[in-house]
This record gives sequence, structure tokens and C-alpha cells, in this order.
Amino acid sequence: MFAGAQVSLYPMTDGFVDVIMSSLSALDPYRERLRIETDDISTLIVGPPEVLFPALRDLYVAAAASRQHVVLRATLSRGCPGEPDDPICQTNALANPSEPLDSRQAGALAALAETPQTGETARAQFSLYVMGAGDHMAEIMGCIDFLKRSGTFDRSKNFCTRLIGDSGPVFATLQEAFCRFGPPQGHVTIDLTVSANSPSIA
Amino acid sequence: MFAGAQVSLYPMTDGFVDVIMSSLSALDPYRERLRIETDDISTLIVGPPEVLFPALRDLYVAAAASRQHVVLRATLSRGCPGEPDDPICQTNALANPSEPLDSRQAGALAALAETPQTGETARAQFSLYVMGAGDHMAEIMGCIDFLKRSGTFDRSKNFCTRLIGDSGPVFATLQEAFCRFGPPQGHVTIDLTVSANSPSIA
Repeated sequence: MFAGAQVSLYPMTDGFVDVIMSSLSALDPYRERLRIETDDISTLIVGPPEVLFPALRDLYVAAAASRQHVVLRATLSRGCPGEPDDPICQTNALANPSEPLDSRQAGALAALAETPQTGETARAQFSLYVMGAGDHMAEIMGCIDFLKRSGTFDRSKNFCTRLIGDSGPVFATLQEAFCRFGPPQGHVTIDLTVSANSPSIA
Repeated sequence: MFAGAQVSLYPMTDGFVDVIMSSLSALDPYRERLRIETDDISTLIVGPPEVLFPALRDLYVAAAASRQHVVLRATLSRGCPGEPDDPICQTNALANPSEPLDSRQAGALAALAETPQTGETARAQFSLYVMGAGDHMAEIMGCIDFLKRSGTFDRSKNFCTRLIGDSGPVFATLQEAFCRFGPPQGHVTIDLTVSANSPSIA
């Protein structure tokens, strides 16, 4: 299995380089369990979902703490057939394929109940894509049903779903959506935007 | 058919509101053929691909002309089974399902040859997702083969492909990728990032 993300931080300030560089230290506790490579467009983070999502949460919280308007963007992927297996991605976090949808939804909700708060609000918008054989819309609709009961659901929009809440539960909700829907050996991706301190919020 | 995008501009400057507001006037020539709605995270643009991609190109060119480091982000989608048909999305731009892959590649290359330049460079990174039945990886690999011959191909990265060139051919390449690969009634999405004036470019 290969899993990871292409991640970017967009601080809407003249001091954007400083916000990005200082936020990156939030990844330090995770670096042994992730492979990280940066270019001018995004940072590749390779590793298992149970490490990746907390790392993204802490990166977001550090950037949001600058109090600038900052957006974290990520293209997340697991099981892409075009990517090689990588031992660093080994995980037990993916749902059992024989487990029915309602049981996976219950497991996701139980995991959320144990999630700590961070003190930073996250306004997130994301799309979950399930590729390959099987009824991909059933998995997506099952995921949306879970989201509506997650406590972080804001509203559905065209092409995506909005979440709002403390960053802890919001990133945990995203992790559950990524891990529990779509087959464990399938190709699942998320297109994610998380916005902090927007002046457009009244 | 329903097609469109959730689009955001991220100008990395204290004057980000001004850059966004002044760039939006680039959409004016297209407004009669698009439906546009904005919230604090993104702007929904609904309409056919042959209008949508030139509109995104002109929005990007206007923002890049500010000479600030600006990123345009878009979640593009066509044929999502969860969205209603909309007459504004009617299009003849999607490939014929019975047309073989090499013929669709040739058509895409011919369309690119007629694309005007804009004078603004675009560094783009994107992922194409083809959902539902059928061999989605064959369509994606066929698209990547087209990209490599497009004249805008930069390199493959994990989870995505980088393009570089004048914004005219780059957005035209994205339009061809979106329209000619994956079945015309299928669910096809693109996760797109286009970066201008990054200080990380030597």
C-alpha cells in the first residue's frame, strides 16, 4: 500500500514565508514515521493515515495560530495502482472489507468520541473519491451519512462537503472518512481545503 | 450533465482581498454562460468545460498580473451522479465513447495546437480521477501519455502531474484532459493547483 498527501500552506500575508517555515516545525514529532519532500508547489508527505492526519492537524493548528488568514490544501491518496508499495505506509487503520457499512459508520463515530480538542477552529471543505470496481456512490453516500452524524458536519455543497468545528474532531472526521469508506485495497483520494481566520466570516 | 468547479484564489500578500476582488472582473465576459456563487472558502462556477476552462485561465492571468505570489485552486467535476442535470452545462466538448484512446489523444493535441498564448506562465499540478465502472487506470494512463506529448508536461509526482508553460496551453491541456478521458457520461474530477510568481523558483 502507498498512502500520503501533497500538502500546501497558503498564508495570505506579506510574511507568508515566515508563517510556512515556522509552522513546519509542527511536523517534527512525526518525521520518523513519515517521508517528507518539498518543491515550489507542495510538500509530499508519505505515511500511514493514522500518522498523516494528526500531522496535518498539527501543521494546520500551528499555521492558524499565526492569526493570519491561512489555508491548508491537501491532495490525499491511498492505494493508487500507479504507486509502489512502501513499508512506511503499513497500517491497520483501514476498515475490514467484509464489514457492513453501518458497522463501519459506528466505528468511525466511536473513534471521533475519543478525539482531543486543539482550541483552533477549522472550516474544512473536501471531496472523497473512490475509484475502481464496486459501487463507488454507495461508499460515498455511506460516508456522507457518517459525516452528517459526526458533529462536524456543516453543509453539502456542489462537488464537496463542508465541515466545521475544533481542528481535533475535524481532522479526525477526515481520517475516518479516508480509512473506513472504499475498499482497503482500493484507490481512495481526498481533495481537502481547510481555512483559518478568514475575514469573510462575520 | 452537471459540470463546474469550486475555485479559490490565494494571494500571499496583506492586500489579498484587493487582488481577489480585482481579478474577479476577468470572469465578466463569461458570466452569462456560467452560474457563479461565492462563500468564505470557494467560488462555485457551474457551466460547460469549453467556457469554464477559458474563464479559469483568464481569472488566473488577472491574478498573476498582480505580480504577487498567487495560487489558484480548483476542484473540477463533471457527471457526478449526485448532482442534477443543468441546461447551462450542455456541451459538445466531451469525447465520443466509441472513439479509441489514440484518436482522442490526437484530437486533444490538435486542439492544443490552436491555443493562443497569454504571456503569463502557469506552473500547474493536478490529479485526474475517473470514477465508476470501466478501466479507470487505462483512461488515466492514456491521459498521462497525452500530457507527455502536450508540450506543457513538466514531470510526474506522487499522486499528481506537473505542467509548465504559458497559461494558454496549460489551461487548454487541462481542458483536454478533463473532456477527452473517462466516458462522456462518467464521473470525472480534477484536483488542480496553479502557482504564479513563487519566490521558490530560482
